Amino acid sequence: MAQIETPYLLFLGDAPDQLAAKVAQGIKDWRPEFAVGQYRMEGCKADMGLPDMNLATAKAAGCRTLVIGVANRGGIISPAWKKVLVAALEEGFDLASGLHNLLRDEPELVAVAQACGRTLHDVRVPSVAYPIANGVKRTGKRMLAVGTDCSVGKMYTALCIEKEMRARGMAADFRATGQTGILITGDGVPLDAVIADFMAGSVEYLTPDNDAEHWDLIEGQGSLFHVSYSGVTMALVHGGQPDALVLCHEPTRPHMRGLPGYTLPSLEALRDVALTLARVANPACVVVGISVNTQHMAEDEAKAYLARLEAEMGLPATDPFRFGAEKLVDALAAI
Amino acid sequence: MAQIETPYLLFLGDAPDQLAAKVAQGIKDWRPEFAVGQYRMEGCKADMGLPDMNLATAKAAGCRTLVIGVANRGGIISPAWKKVLVAALEEGFDLASGLHNLLRDEPELVAVAQACGRTLHDVRVPSVAYPIANGVKRTGKRMLAVGTDCSVGKMYTALCIEKEMRARGMAADFRATGQTGILITGDGVPLDAVIADFMAGSVEYLTPDNDAEHWDLIEGQGSLFHVSYSGVTMALVHGGQPDALVLCHEPTRPHMRGLPGYTLPSLEALRDVALTLARVANPACVVVGISVNTQHMAEDEAKAYLARLEAEMGLPATDPFRFGAEKLVDALAAI
Repeated sequence: MAQIETPYLLFLGDAPDQLAAKVAQGIKDWRPEFAVGQYRMEGCKADMGLPDMNLATAKAAGCRTLVIGVANRGGIISPAWKKVLVAALEEGFDLASGLHNLLRDEPELVAVAQACGRTLHDVRVPSVAYPIANGVKRTGKRMLAVGTDCSVGKMYTALCIEKEMRARGMAADFRATGQTGILITGDGVPLDAVIADFMAGSVEYLTPDNDAEHWDLIEGQGSLFHVSYSGVTMALVHGGQPDALVLCHEPTRPHMRGLPGYTLPSLEALRDVALTLARVANPACVVVGISVNTQHMAEDEAKAYLARLEAEMGLPATDPFRFGAEKLVDALAAI
Repeated sequence: MAQIETPYLLFLGDAPDQLAAKVAQGIKDWRPEFAVGQYRMEGCKADMGLPDMNLATAKAAGCRTLVIGVANRGGIISPAWKKVLVAALEEGFDLASGLHNLLRDEPELVAVAQACGRTLHDVRVPSVAYPIANGVKRTGKRMLAVGTDCSVGKMYTALCIEKEMRARGMAADFRATGQTGILITGDGVPLDAVIADFMAGSVEYLTPDNDAEHWDLIEGQGSLFHVSYSGVTMALVHGGQPDALVLCHEPTRPHMRGLPGYTLPSLEALRDVALTLARVANPACVVVGISVNTQHMAEDEAKAYLARLEAEMGLPATDPFRFGAEKLVDALAAI
């Protein structure tokens, strides 16, 4: 993945609601320094609270890349969008997108980008020939977020920890393994699109040797207990060579995401399986804490749940997005 | 993967030794009814003990597909081979290959195949758009071979069990997940070349609903303890939904294949991790036995080792290629 040039103009298109612009929201929340302005088309119902800009004003404000921060149904590039994208290339912007409909599959965009010397970044698919993992021990420290299920807050957990570590002056980098994370940070590995044999190697590539005290905070994917995607998770556990695992959970979910009939594992089961497997690659790996997505719980209820978890599991537990990541960073700093 | 038409003419090319023709050997050992003849070029040092045929005699003998049963260094298609392959297409044969150098990447072969209406089968890469796994319980029975390491005999174990089951009149099919296995049986999923998100789905696709007493005997890949390939293994454990696991081991290996510094797990560790994970997809899954590759042990030594394993693990243990698969099939039939 070639590094995407910053800062960004966030393209919100004709987003039908705020949720459709979650990529733009993620960039604005986690890399506000990249989010210079927003481009909204007629009828756009999303608003990041950023200055509204047209292409000329965004160019003058220093934006280098127009990032498609919105997803419509089916992940396609609509004709209405395409006019704006062509004009952006002509104005001198690169384009970046995580849509299933690749920029490179649109002949008009390819032709204009070539004519204008601009780059089309499709973060949905890999642009690197990753190696096969060699398992050699790397320098520096690594944290991996592992979940009882998909979409329980693993990306937000890693980003919250990065923010808190950086606030403390620690050396730390979020390492993106999914499309949203890559667009937020401008770099990463789209792990779900990597060829099976190269998955663990792509994670080694993403988290190379580093300073002894540097932390790679690796975005998790899937779950070892999610039968559709567990192979991807396994590659993170072994390719990531984590020194520390943070267990991620969403307590109100009735069944595994997309799998009616599959109940979520207990946090104890996740701890035991993930740690056993992680120690194959790094015998020193430990579980340092629990991150709970409490968005569907009242504040009192959430705090009582976290207190009970801490007592039961003997590990610090928090909702890092709601209550801060201090406890998790304290535990990581103690390694 | 489109089914490869049988029977085969086995192309041994200019194989420098018998080992270079291990694909041809596998077909001859496990699907002798497909192996009508062999085609050997000047200087060929391999011999399957089959009738030597030229293209015309093979055609007259009923061969439908020329299978490249030999691998040279780098997996490339040499100019000397290409002449034979072109002539084979013109003679009316399809071609099948597991080489890294794809048939479809050779313009001359593509042109002649098109002109003659023949099919090029590159089993190295998928030709199917596999679904994402849905985890829905399927009918029929499934056995998965899981290993302490790569290349410990998982394919041979599944093939030995298939042979013994068929000899007993049981309904059983070996399900190939690697290039050699696909060429042996003419069908399967090249799992190491599947995109990450679709790995488990491709295994579900390979092992669909079947008669209640039918056994799918699924070829394993990699190992849950091999950090380069464990994600592929994980997808087999969850996508395969096995009712039974057979543990596969090679006792004389000093370290994990290709990973100096990584010791092999114990069979107990493999049993515990594999069973815990397999029960996510199929709570009724059991470990039925142990298959040991004893090729580097004297017969007495091998028998003593197997007896000790049986006592220690409380499971039937055999080298199915050397001593027969009866014990494993007895255990499977009892489920």
